[in-house]
Amino acid sequence: MFVTALAEDAAQVQARLEAALAGRADLPLIHAMRYAVKGGKGLRGFLVLEGARMLGLAADRALPAAAAVEALHAYSLVHDDLPAMDDDDLRRGQPTVHVKWNEATAILAGDALQALAFELLTDPVLGPAEVRVALLAGLAQASGAEGMVLGQALDMAAADAAVPLTLAQITALQAGKTGALFRWAAEAGAVIAGADPAPLRAYATALGLAFQIADDILDETGDAGKAGKRLHKDAAAGKATFVSLLGLDGARARAKVLVDEAEAALQPYGAAADTLRHCARFVIAREM
Amino acid sequence: MFVTALAEDAAQVQARLEAALAGRADLPLIHAMRYAVKGGKGLRGFLVLEGARMLGLAADRALPAAAAVEALHAYSLVHDDLPAMDDDDLRRGQPTVHVKWNEATAILAGDALQALAFELLTDPVLGPAEVRVALLAGLAQASGAEGMVLGQALDMAAADAAVPLTLAQITALQAGKTGALFRWAAEAGAVIAGADPAPLRAYATALGLAFQIADDILDETGDAGKAGKRLHKDAAAGKATFVSLLGLDGARARAKVLVDEAEAALQPYGAAADTLRHCARFVIAREM
Repeated sequence: MFVTALAEDAAQVQARLEAALAGRADLPLIHAMRYAVKGGKGLRGFLVLEGARMLGLAADRALPAAAAVEALHAYSLVHDDLPAMDDDDLRRGQPTVHVKWNEATAILAGDALQALAFELLTDPVLGPAEVRVALLAGLAQASGAEGMVLGQALDMAAADAAVPLTLAQITALQAGKTGALFRWAAEAGAVIAGADPAPLRAYATALGLAFQIADDILDETGDAGKAGKRLHKDAAAGKATFVSLLGLDGARARAKVLVDEAEAALQPYGAAADTLRHCARFVIAREM
Repeated sequence: MFVTALAEDAAQVQARLEAALAGRADLPLIHAMRYAVKGGKGLRGFLVLEGARMLGLAADRALPAAAAVEALHAYSLVHDDLPAMDDDDLRRGQPTVHVKWNEATAILAGDALQALAFELLTDPVLGPAEVRVALLAGLAQASGAEGMVLGQALDMAAADAAVPLTLAQITALQAGKTGALFRWAAEAGAVIAGADPAPLRAYATALGLAFQIADDILDETGDAGKAGKRLHKDAAAGKATFVSLLGLDGARARAKVLVDEAEAALQPYGAAADTLRHCARFVIAREM
């Protein structure tokens, strides 16, 4: 079952991150890093582990890669929540890092979580050095100025622009901001297993976009208590979203089409991909 | 000659970073990244290239590692200059990134420069995958929560503390904040060449501390025009420095002893290490 697998994987990834941070200095920096990696859904880490399992690997073999993508994602949230960025005070139902500590601690904790993500990918458990370099190069590209950070920069530019983004522009923005990390996570198992990553790449591309459309729907219709963060921020800021561009029903229909595409991409794997199929359906049904 | 080598190496590293950023989006993010890697002395990149040359490698073989450490150093300066951190408006004689653009652009440009540093280390020019993983693991450790960022966090904690730091505490802080990256840079050539990095490690440990003592002396006695940044900030903030703890003459004497130690560590290399010896003497004679 997908929901059980997700929770179990999140716990395993959490334990790996705790182990990586164990025995470090008793400083706000380290406490903030531990805090930042806690309490998420763990979807990106799950994609790594489930991709590996589906291809016949023990999940342990992929665990440092799952921990790496969650550390990377956590750093992006900590920085994204800063006053100069999205200025959020609530995340995963808890005060954001700069609210609980201060801005400097949030900047440094995010910086150190990014370094930790790359450090985790040097773990020999992941396989020969060639495999680890491939994972490292992929994560650097997916997270940097041609991937996730590019998406964030486009998002900022959009907030300052006089004209709201078009559907094509928002789709491109989200391909960086959310999609690049989803793709890396879904492909990681194939990279470790030495298998063709193309079907998982197609799956993750559709999944990432569906995820973001669902996020926009949640921002419009969701329950802040369940979501664990403030909602209605984009609408209040006058930002174009998939909902403002397609309407609620149109956005829901588009997300459903993308989930069908994601499931279809898994066809080569047959029943072995059932948990990833459940994941795709979960992504548009979730309340957080 | 050391000064010529430093300038030539800095130009080569600059060109490698330009190449890495070429063809990217026309966004403040990318402009800010280019801006942030310009105009520094390039000492860390020089250490990489000169270490490689001394061990008989063509400098080209080490160039992506030199570019990586300069990208990493540039990210740390961009974030360190932010209002929530050191709040500096001048760096290398120019407005800091958050002054020239804004805080969000500075946060994102720093984040993307960190990712770029790791991406550069996956360049096959550096050698077999094992060598690249060793460089990647080393840089992640040197720059993260047990290296550079740890030093920055200790520095912040010191600013908030009621009692000024002791000499032992400042030495430990600087071993992280400056020393870890100097050590990685000096060892990188040996890692690429497959040589014993121990003598270069000893050299860089002494050099990094001498560099920081010279920085404190410069902060006290330097010319802001030549230094390209505001001076007297530590004294104004009541922070303990090597100068406040040892006095000006004591700090100069300590830096001189460290430079002698750094030179002595190079003994196994004979005359081949002369440029690195000049570098050590430059570090305490510089005006910027």
